[in-house]
Amino acid sequence: MIREFSPKLSQDVEVGVGDDCAVVRSINNDIVLCADMLVEHVHFETSYFDPFDIGYKAVAVNLSDIAAMGARAIYLLCTLSGPKDYPLDEILQGIQDTSKLYNVTLVGGDISRSTEITVSISVVGTRDTSVSLLRSAASAGDQIVLTGPTGRSAAGLRSLSQNNVRPSHPTPFELAHLRPLPLLDAGRAALSYGARAGIDISDSLALDLHRAADASNVGFELSDVPLIEGVTKEQALYGGEDYELLLFIKDGVSLAKHLDKVLHRTSAQVIGVVTNNQEIRTLGGEQLPKKGYLH
Amino acid sequence: MIREFSPKLSQDVEVGVGDDCAVVRSINNDIVLCADMLVEHVHFETSYFDPFDIGYKAVAVNLSDIAAMGARAIYLLCTLSGPKDYPLDEILQGIQDTSKLYNVTLVGGDISRSTEITVSISVVGTRDTSVSLLRSAASAGDQIVLTGPTGRSAAGLRSLSQNNVRPSHPTPFELAHLRPLPLLDAGRAALSYGARAGIDISDSLALDLHRAADASNVGFELSDVPLIEGVTKEQALYGGEDYELLLFIKDGVSLAKHLDKVLHRTSAQVIGVVTNNQEIRTLGGEQLPKKGYLH
Repeated sequence: MIREFSPKLSQDVEVGVGDDCAVVRSINNDIVLCADMLVEHVHFETSYFDPFDIGYKAVAVNLSDIAAMGARAIYLLCTLSGPKDYPLDEILQGIQDTSKLYNVTLVGGDISRSTEITVSISVVGTRDTSVSLLRSAASAGDQIVLTGPTGRSAAGLRSLSQNNVRPSHPTPFELAHLRPLPLLDAGRAALSYGARAGIDISDSLALDLHRAADASNVGFELSDVPLIEGVTKEQALYGGEDYELLLFIKDGVSLAKHLDKVLHRTSAQVIGVVTNNQEIRTLGGEQLPKKGYLH
Repeated sequence: MIREFSPKLSQDVEVGVGDDCAVVRSINNDIVLCADMLVEHVHFETSYFDPFDIGYKAVAVNLSDIAAMGARAIYLLCTLSGPKDYPLDEILQGIQDTSKLYNVTLVGGDISRSTEITVSISVVGTRDTSVSLLRSAASAGDQIVLTGPTGRSAAGLRSLSQNNVRPSHPTPFELAHLRPLPLLDAGRAALSYGARAGIDISDSLALDLHRAADASNVGFELSDVPLIEGVTKEQALYGGEDYELLLFIKDGVSLAKHLDKVLHRTSAQVIGVVTNNQEIRTLGGEQLPKKGYLH
């Protein structure tokens, strides 16, 4: 049980941190649930992640799953473990502050000792409608919309791990790796715009696109993927941890414009189409390998 | 994301394991949330826990928190990590089967590699009424009801760790340590019988009683604690992991009789009273040390 923190509670929270369980008010719409963990040496190194980064990122990757459903996050539970001499309270502060930033309430959790640092987060959310963005709902003829260019996180990881130190002023690529942005607004905007299929890019553009294609029993033909300066094509395709969204909808061009407006950027674009033939999964006519940043 | 398991889903689950999140039907009553973790070398050793035990116990200790609120468990999320050569799928099977046993649906989670095994569980539950059993609600004059004798788990841990092997037929004490029973029925029965204060014994009878007294700003006078053959007084008081419940109510004698009927046992009893003076926390007139099985 987490005793250290008694976050300011919203009026929907009757019992927060400090009892055996939290008690929160009934959720009138459908409930959306996810859980994801970060493990030291697998997902991060303490040489180039500070404790706050670890807490931040553990929350962000979970909120990205909520974004990929077009849902809204409400409550968060965390369990964390680490060595005695590591400041777990600073990880918890990262979890706490990041939750607040995204309007989510930390309602409970547990802390333990362990050799490696682990952070496990569960999120309880809801959806405003009776539909979600599903991996399994892409259909032939859909355009494939990518919310923004990929590979930044992989490029950031490269410089972080090479220098093996947490810079006090990380580069934009390094920030993309340390503090990824969960695209909650984009997910909900896509859903309300009519999209019914989507996935977030956690392991790589290629791998997560294949996953959605597998779940939907479809193929895809990508024309090209956006490349930004400083990022290799390899990183953009197979780098992972960008947390951009892949969305599937008939009129992807309109959705991309709409998302750019919502996100205040000019980066969403159609990168290809969904096809009937599951065997055909190509980029520029060549079969796209199913590989990515598998931890 | 957990891909290996596609549990049979209840009709309240629209999206289960396999997408970015699970989607479940709205919960009309208040929602009860908790999260708790088990870590190798801290909470168990693989020499005397088999993988199924680990999964079982991780679920059971969380359900005990739900029991201690008088609530009902519905959904479960898990994240687990461990070394490549350890059968994590058997832990997952333990989680899965134990969830089914207690009528809870596993709806999502995550698996990662790590050096030490960790299992983190979150439970989403609900309550049938608008009240809960709170740690903070004990008041002077309440009788203190203990659902059953403590120390079995500590006695079982002693023989397990001495023999350092998982017996194919554990003794009852060893079973109490490996496969504790979450007292869900007792918690709900106590709540509907009128109890408003309660806590489960995870770290020790003494420590958890002190915790409830701290949260309620009260003291206590224990007359005696039940001792069963094969268990030392030290184990009964400070042993921990029994997952019996401590309940606080004016007429504890009647509640104890009622709980014995619900639990089909003859073990619930009044062990003392709650007092106004926070300084007085005694067993048989002697101050009770605030110590327990802290991991």
